Amino acid sequence: MDAPTRARVMHPLIASDRIEGTLVCRQDGAQIGTIERLMINKVSGQVAYAVVNCSEYPAVRKMRVPLRWDGLHYDRRRGAYLVDLTDEEIRRAPTGEGGFDWGDRNEVAHIRSYRPPSFWRS
Amino acid sequence: MDAPTRARVMHPLIASDRIEGTLVCRQDGAQIGTIERLMINKVSGQVAYAVVNCSEYPAVRKMRVPLRWDGLHYDRRRGAYLVDLTDEEIRRAPTGEGGFDWGDRNEVAHIRSYRPPSFWRS
Repeated sequence: MDAPTRARVMHPLIASDRIEGTLVCRQDGAQIGTIERLMINKVSGQVAYAVVNCSEYPAVRKMRVPLRWDGLHYDRRRGAYLVDLTDEEIRRAPTGEGGFDWGDRNEVAHIRSYRPPSFWRS
Repeated sequence: MDAPTRARVMHPLIASDRIEGTLVCRQDGAQIGTIERLMINKVSGQVAYAVVNCSEYPAVRKMRVPLRWDGLHYDRRRGAYLVDLTDEEIRRAPTGEGGFDWGDRNEVAHIRSYRPPSFWRS
């Protein structure tokens, strides 16, 4: 009866509505927010970034932050996505009041440069 | 003041929660169902397929059907995704009772072959 275990290891896919609402944490357990939605390229179907709602984490002084998909690492034990970002790095994200234009989705290009490459390419 | 118009044309991205719940129709207007969720590759962030709920469209005799992302074409005027599939083609989809195993997400490989190439590559 090892089918459930095997299945868990092998499934390469996850449902969008299972991602939405999932916690985003640091390695030390600090909760940064929850995934509100994914922004998806209409033609290619590639996830460009996740919109993380940080409204219950005052330290970062942002309502929402865009995080690149490949910077989110799912931790099955915690049931959360882990990110390796400091509060200061999140505060510098091009979002919120007067910064990132959520309406202009071309702004996704900007989030590729505002973080240390080590985060995006770790 | 042509900014809103320009923005509409240029945005390459769409939000996952805006896709979920969107109608799926045929060119003739017949409503096949609504998009329930997207199945996304955990590592690459690529949408593998959309799960379409057909429970209100008895002709296809399916509760859910997997449709490839590149087979869904958004029609802004109707606010719906258009597909070019007959009821018979949808009935032959590897889903539903005793067919497609939604738990085993590796089954995504199967949906690549069950339709005429003209649909997937039009």
